[in-house]
Amino acid sequence: MSDILIQNADVITLDENGTVLRAVDVAISGEHILALDDIPEDFAPDEVIDGTDHVVMPGFFNAHTHSPMTFVRGWAEDLPLDRWFNERIWVAESALTVEDVRWGAYLAAAEMIRSGTIAFADHYFFMDEVGAVVQESGLRANLAWCVFGLDSEIGEGLQGSIDFLQRWQNAANGRIKTVLGPHAPYTCPPDFLARVADRARDLGVGLHIHLAESHEQMESSLSGHGVTPVRLLEELGLFSQPTIAAHCIHVTDEDLDILSENQVTAVQCPNCHMKLGMGVTPVPKMLERGINVALGTDGVASNDALDMLSEARLASLMQKNHTGDPTVLPGDTVLRLATQNGARAMGFPDSGVVAPGRAADLLVIDTRRPWWRPRHDLVANLLYAAKATDISDVIVAGRLLMRSGELTTLDEERILIEAEKRALHMLGQDLQTVREYRT
Amino acid sequence: MSDILIQNADVITLDENGTVLRAVDVAISGEHILALDDIPEDFAPDEVIDGTDHVVMPGFFNAHTHSPMTFVRGWAEDLPLDRWFNERIWVAESALTVEDVRWGAYLAAAEMIRSGTIAFADHYFFMDEVGAVVQESGLRANLAWCVFGLDSEIGEGLQGSIDFLQRWQNAANGRIKTVLGPHAPYTCPPDFLARVADRARDLGVGLHIHLAESHEQMESSLSGHGVTPVRLLEELGLFSQPTIAAHCIHVTDEDLDILSENQVTAVQCPNCHMKLGMGVTPVPKMLERGINVALGTDGVASNDALDMLSEARLASLMQKNHTGDPTVLPGDTVLRLATQNGARAMGFPDSGVVAPGRAADLLVIDTRRPWWRPRHDLVANLLYAAKATDISDVIVAGRLLMRSGELTTLDEERILIEAEKRALHMLGQDLQTVREYRT
Repeated sequence: MSDILIQNADVITLDENGTVLRAVDVAISGEHILALDDIPEDFAPDEVIDGTDHVVMPGFFNAHTHSPMTFVRGWAEDLPLDRWFNERIWVAESALTVEDVRWGAYLAAAEMIRSGTIAFADHYFFMDEVGAVVQESGLRANLAWCVFGLDSEIGEGLQGSIDFLQRWQNAANGRIKTVLGPHAPYTCPPDFLARVADRARDLGVGLHIHLAESHEQMESSLSGHGVTPVRLLEELGLFSQPTIAAHCIHVTDEDLDILSENQVTAVQCPNCHMKLGMGVTPVPKMLERGINVALGTDGVASNDALDMLSEARLASLMQKNHTGDPTVLPGDTVLRLATQNGARAMGFPDSGVVAPGRAADLLVIDTRRPWWRPRHDLVANLLYAAKATDISDVIVAGRLLMRSGELTTLDEERILIEAEKRALHMLGQDLQTVREYRT
Repeated sequence: MSDILIQNADVITLDENGTVLRAVDVAISGEHILALDDIPEDFAPDEVIDGTDHVVMPGFFNAHTHSPMTFVRGWAEDLPLDRWFNERIWVAESALTVEDVRWGAYLAAAEMIRSGTIAFADHYFFMDEVGAVVQESGLRANLAWCVFGLDSEIGEGLQGSIDFLQRWQNAANGRIKTVLGPHAPYTCPPDFLARVADRARDLGVGLHIHLAESHEQMESSLSGHGVTPVRLLEELGLFSQPTIAAHCIHVTDEDLDILSENQVTAVQCPNCHMKLGMGVTPVPKMLERGINVALGTDGVASNDALDMLSEARLASLMQKNHTGDPTVLPGDTVLRLATQNGARAMGFPDSGVVAPGRAADLLVIDTRRPWWRPRHDLVANLLYAAKATDISDVIVAGRLLMRSGELTTLDEERILIEAEKRALHMLGQDLQTVREYRT
């Protein structure tokens, strides 16, 4: 970490007024933003970034993913949901090793830094591997070891996930937060979910769970438990702790009231929801009720990328398309979902705004590209026209994780080779058989 | 133009079988592909491109746009359709000058080459400016001077648009095709449309028109003419010539029969349709009926980019979302819409497939990025994870328009400055007032 000065940049602050500043300096001292424009005379930066024709904005928070699953990118395309899971994803995951998870997470970390994601809420297995990758990469994360309540499961069940939680809580200088990760109300027995909720309360920690993904889940919850999945979780006590609830697609108005009365963040995963034909999370209704809505990519298996700029764009387009109303989810609002709302859900409330005293979690974006001209409205250029690859520099907790397009903390070349090798091996593939896969 | 050899590349051919080749050489001689893998021993290329860890594929065809409108990028965001047009777009266009069109088209050309679009079907005013930009840039285009049938309009009406058509037909060594461009059935009087159809037949040329964009257009056509907009155009004789019909959202099953019985290409503009909440073109039904479906960006005013990779991705996601069926519009199909189907509609049937004898209209894509690992399925990597900026080289009619990320035919730095200056001036803006636009 070193003091950084970004000179002469345009800044999308995402403050309460949606202020966009032009041609200002940004001073970073330690892990925080020291000043905007009004730079103290004695500020002596170790590093100076020329912000001319660049935009500075808060980094993205990916509020629901399974980062190690990069190994199945392109492995389950255009399939019905049951075949997608049973013939492809489940087959891949049943052979999972610690090494696969580590290299999958490395690949994800490289992809996230390159595309401006500075923090991710992860929900998977062998999570110590992910913790180690977070520590090394310089990213922030909110980590949960996924549990189902089965007799034998990866990681020794609930107690194993609690051990993980305690090993990593506030690790990496506070950049890692941990929560409990029961899989979903349709996969975990109710008494197990109640036990997880109890332990979360005892430990004073949050939860991360899948919720209300399909019409079938709604039907089976109503017939099996007499209540909706959302109501079931509330009755089981899960919402007494801050909860990241992924998907929240098939929800009733009463469910929305429950979410709004509790500390629940609803995470829409636009690309995943569209690609698998899952339906539309009612984001505008949620925002009207004051529910904290964030965005996620879900795992690469259903995406196939970890690109939060693309998710923000899709979140906007998807709601305008669904409602037929081009005014819903305007640019600033969508960018807040993809940044500060995720930050709040994941335990990093200092992040998500460019202002003095806030966390130095920033992206620097190179606008010397045709799609950045003219600059009538930088939020529109960014949201509807920019590519994630326009991001030139990524700063997390005051540290440069990417500088002029080069990753500074990870050996990207090695990661690309190792991750691909393991992904192919894991699926019983080599490059030759893969060559024939589509032909 | 010079002979080019691309060595050791993976190739998404988009041939009839959807063949993907790994680690092959591609030889280009003159304007055509000479050989794939089986390179003649005496082939002596002037230029060699290292294709290792690169993908070669056909270039994109943008089948409906108004390229000069880059000047309104970000100028009309999140507004209802009537305010979008009346308060923003129409105000901008009413001040249009020849110079604005030229620099707007230059900016569009730079953006299109960078993002892999090698040809575009354009529909606007002062089209000689666009023709000159196409000639200089090395792109292909299908150009129409838009006419409304008004007493006084830009370009002296139908005869002026025919003069333009004749000046530019097969110009730029055949890279430019011209057609007639009546605006739409809801804006042009029926007798004028019939006259345009007559002239198209006399001249043996095609047409490019907006069609069936909104529910209101359907209602007003039914009440005013007693038939749907599609039926109206057929009755007026427009479909006797090959027609590019942009949008085709609000169409009946009978309309689809009419389109399939004629040489009509339906152009979906996914980003525009979602962003303005216009509805969903029934692409799967169209494909079932054998209708030629292509993709377009529409003008930047309603997008805000000219990125055909993004349009292809959205076309797929939008239909999976709309139908709830993840199997519709699989990867290969969508890529065909974005390439060869557009090529056919625009008068370049040799393009859109990587095979010996076909046009050398190719993209070379750098896969040394995390989202390109693993490579289980290159079509999926490309369609769902790649960024348009991964494209490193663009070849049109055997000529390199971009080489290792540098434009070879256009002065990009100057275009960025001139286009922005004119866009701001045209809207009575300067950078200072723009700074205050959002704040």
